[in-house]
Amino acid sequence: MSTTTGTPPTTNGRAAEAYEQLISHVKEAQLLGSTAGLLGWDQETMMPPKGLPFRSQQLALLAKMAHGMRTDPRIGEWLDACESDTELTAEPTSVPAVNLREIRRDYDRSTKLPSELVVELSQTSSMAKAEWKRAREQREFGIFKPHLEKIVELNRRKAECYGWPSDGEPWDALADGFEPGCTAKEVETAFKPLREKLVALLTELMGSSTQPSDSFNRIKLPLEQQKKFVRYVVEQFGFDFERGRLDISTHPFCGGTHCNDVRMTTRFHEDNLSDALGSTMHEAGHGIYNQGLPEEHIGTPAGASVSLGIHESQSRMWENQVGRSKSFWQWLYPKLKDFFGEAVADLSFDEVYGSNNVVKPDFIRVEADEATYNMHIMVRFEIERAMMNGKLEVKDVPEYWNAKYKEYLDVDVPNDAKGCLQDIHWSMGSIGYFPTYTLGNLYAAQFFDKAKEEIPDLEEQFARGEFSALKTWLNEKIHSHGKRYRAADLCRVVTGKELSAEPLMNHLNSKLRPLYGLA
Amino acid sequence: MSTTTGTPPTTNGRAAEAYEQLISHVKEAQLLGSTAGLLGWDQETMMPPKGLPFRSQQLALLAKMAHGMRTDPRIGEWLDACESDTELTAEPTSVPAVNLREIRRDYDRSTKLPSELVVELSQTSSMAKAEWKRAREQREFGIFKPHLEKIVELNRRKAECYGWPSDGEPWDALADGFEPGCTAKEVETAFKPLREKLVALLTELMGSSTQPSDSFNRIKLPLEQQKKFVRYVVEQFGFDFERGRLDISTHPFCGGTHCNDVRMTTRFHEDNLSDALGSTMHEAGHGIYNQGLPEEHIGTPAGASVSLGIHESQSRMWENQVGRSKSFWQWLYPKLKDFFGEAVADLSFDEVYGSNNVVKPDFIRVEADEATYNMHIMVRFEIERAMMNGKLEVKDVPEYWNAKYKEYLDVDVPNDAKGCLQDIHWSMGSIGYFPTYTLGNLYAAQFFDKAKEEIPDLEEQFARGEFSALKTWLNEKIHSHGKRYRAADLCRVVTGKELSAEPLMNHLNSKLRPLYGLA
Repeated sequence: MSTTTGTPPTTNGRAAEAYEQLISHVKEAQLLGSTAGLLGWDQETMMPPKGLPFRSQQLALLAKMAHGMRTDPRIGEWLDACESDTELTAEPTSVPAVNLREIRRDYDRSTKLPSELVVELSQTSSMAKAEWKRAREQREFGIFKPHLEKIVELNRRKAECYGWPSDGEPWDALADGFEPGCTAKEVETAFKPLREKLVALLTELMGSSTQPSDSFNRIKLPLEQQKKFVRYVVEQFGFDFERGRLDISTHPFCGGTHCNDVRMTTRFHEDNLSDALGSTMHEAGHGIYNQGLPEEHIGTPAGASVSLGIHESQSRMWENQVGRSKSFWQWLYPKLKDFFGEAVADLSFDEVYGSNNVVKPDFIRVEADEATYNMHIMVRFEIERAMMNGKLEVKDVPEYWNAKYKEYLDVDVPNDAKGCLQDIHWSMGSIGYFPTYTLGNLYAAQFFDKAKEEIPDLEEQFARGEFSALKTWLNEKIHSHGKRYRAADLCRVVTGKELSAEPLMNHLNSKLRPLYGLA
Repeated sequence: MSTTTGTPPTTNGRAAEAYEQLISHVKEAQLLGSTAGLLGWDQETMMPPKGLPFRSQQLALLAKMAHGMRTDPRIGEWLDACESDTELTAEPTSVPAVNLREIRRDYDRSTKLPSELVVELSQTSSMAKAEWKRAREQREFGIFKPHLEKIVELNRRKAECYGWPSDGEPWDALADGFEPGCTAKEVETAFKPLREKLVALLTELMGSSTQPSDSFNRIKLPLEQQKKFVRYVVEQFGFDFERGRLDISTHPFCGGTHCNDVRMTTRFHEDNLSDALGSTMHEAGHGIYNQGLPEEHIGTPAGASVSLGIHESQSRMWENQVGRSKSFWQWLYPKLKDFFGEAVADLSFDEVYGSNNVVKPDFIRVEADEATYNMHIMVRFEIERAMMNGKLEVKDVPEYWNAKYKEYLDVDVPNDAKGCLQDIHWSMGSIGYFPTYTLGNLYAAQFFDKAKEEIPDLEEQFARGEFSALKTWLNEKIHSHGKRYRAADLCRVVTGKELSAEPLMNHLNSKLRPLYGLA
């Protein structure tokens, strides 16, 4: 698929002019919005502490202005003029057709919400975030409960504004904002077999008499050297430091403003290089995706990422399929010795590789291993879906949460701070977000299988520290398309199949069973 | 003078409402403009190199939007409504009167320039900057000449748009943008006696058989330790790191977005701690001014700095009156030994103090010492004034420049790169800017004399590492007023006198004569 310049095919003059004005307007709105990207990055990495109140004012103004531009009624007029022209949209995966499809989608969604609701959601979540923090500190769900109730209520109203198909449900209307086209039914269909297989695998792993060592995860290593090490690894992956940065923040993230200015962050603990390395490889996956978007279309849908799920597939693939693989560690193990010398001299390959793949059911999502991670997501998905359908009352969330953790992971949640209060998402008003994490894991495994098929010596390359073939493959098959395909279509185009749980289960089985001495 | 909240005194309802709308609009324009402040800082300190083209687009959009807001015709209407109300402006140094005076000034200046001229100036200077760089690299004034000619021509047109009083000249209209009310005649009146006295002093200093040591300026010191050292010094000055940062950039500057988010930069060389320390103290002077502006008025003239000259007085005072004084070094000399140990163990107090005060006529402005610095400015002022008056053709600038350097500093300029091509200012289209540096030196000396008069043991305090009395005095006498007073008025209110060259000459004589063994 060639990436055309976005100039529409021959068409009537009025539509061509409307298309040009539309694209120019959308690019300007994105350009303004991109400044908020930098301010947000700066807030988490550089800003002096007392700069916060003014920063909030700056961001609020930019959000207001960008929203004004995104809901400008002229967009509707330009879209009407373009859509009435059949030539512009004749080829549904052409740049103009993709841009029109996605701008229409964004415009319709943006203008469907009455501004009172937008304001009320923003105020409610601003208050809810503060009260969620307090509730978590005090381990007291009751503090957060009225705010979550309000958030559920407002999200129901939001879903009603967006609407959903007759065979759908309110949750779908919200999820659509994070993962276009995603529905609860589809998620359920994907999650159910995955859960059954994961539970079975976990039972086997936990019951095995062979357990990998986790000794590497307790060794103290100097922070300055850790920084150099993780930077070295992601530089080898192909993250371009001429077009991006790596800094430190409390919660790792990947942001920035443009494919040529990607800002990722990580965090360091003296006694947990695995966490820093995992986080950095994860964010580098996001960063490599952003750096791989087609520059000529930046600011329009044709130059933007597909969805949160596809974005997450890129971070998970570099973190897990690459960064926890045996071949990767065959390359990195000697480097580890070079970087840290004495401190790691006694560590065997098996200890290091094993420590990076220990499976341990626990109750904190962000610390979960590859095998248990998706269970955390399933609990959250079931709860938010049930809340939206009115089948679960907010007051019953803690009890439901703890029961599900017992059922899926066989762990006893000690308190709500380590239970249903552990994540910020709901307090921010985000319902429908969580499943994108598991979708990311599924897409990652499925894409990676295809990459291995098309690049047969991929793992031998990793063992030599060569990652450019994989990066180039991802650039070509996924990044360069922008939003040309919706997630499910992209999966079909790239892998030739519907999304399924099989590749992920194969990945986990083939890696973890040998480590745990299982056939 | 109490700082009122900006709520206007009892007045007619229409004017009060117009004032409120005006202030709210101006604050919003400033808020948007402040985001450009962060983007600019990031560009010089953090941005990955290939982020530049997109950053330029972001900044151009913000500049366009901020300009649109500053020239919004409603500002004119609101101003008219407010100005027709005598109560609002009854007390000329009240917050509403100050805000109305300065918003009127800014609005009239902004709307006097036709947008074609603004665009042409911006395009010309964008090209001129690139060609100036090339000319400097190739030491070839001819490359820059046509661009400087164009800049002079456009600046003449700009001056004509602004206009000037019948006893003035075009240069005044430009200088007014940097130093409100500043005229070439006044600058000439201030500079002439200063130059005569400086030339006489220099002749004596250079002819003396006693010369201070400059050995400190050749010692290699580790960069990490230098960073800690200069940060320690400006922290003692009172720069608040909860409300600001210190980073590294090629050319030191002080920027940021708000009194609670001040970003200053410096630079380091292994063998020149004096340069890093001087730059950092200088920028900290700017930073302490910005942090001392009245928070409740930020975004309006009542919360903004007076002028470039007054801003420079703050940086120069901390850099020179404080940071090159004997009492300051009495405090810092033992700290220097603590920070750098072995490397400075053999340095005597006289070597360190002397090295920080060596006078050496040379041809590079930014490397000039306190005594010769102003001569560099005088050459530039005379040249830009003569160009604007049509008395000097651009082609004759190099010859004129070199002759003046011979006359004022007795140095032979080796080539144009180290001569008339050394500064970026003219290539940026800035004519009328240079004299604010010398005005800053004059104000610094005069303010500092007053501070010593009002805080009699000031220098004893410095010798103990105490700087809070000076900082508090500056906060109260200068920073807290925002733009309440124009520069000349502020000088009169604070020192009780008109600006004169005497305090600066006294400062230089009393410090330098003993160092050079002169009576």
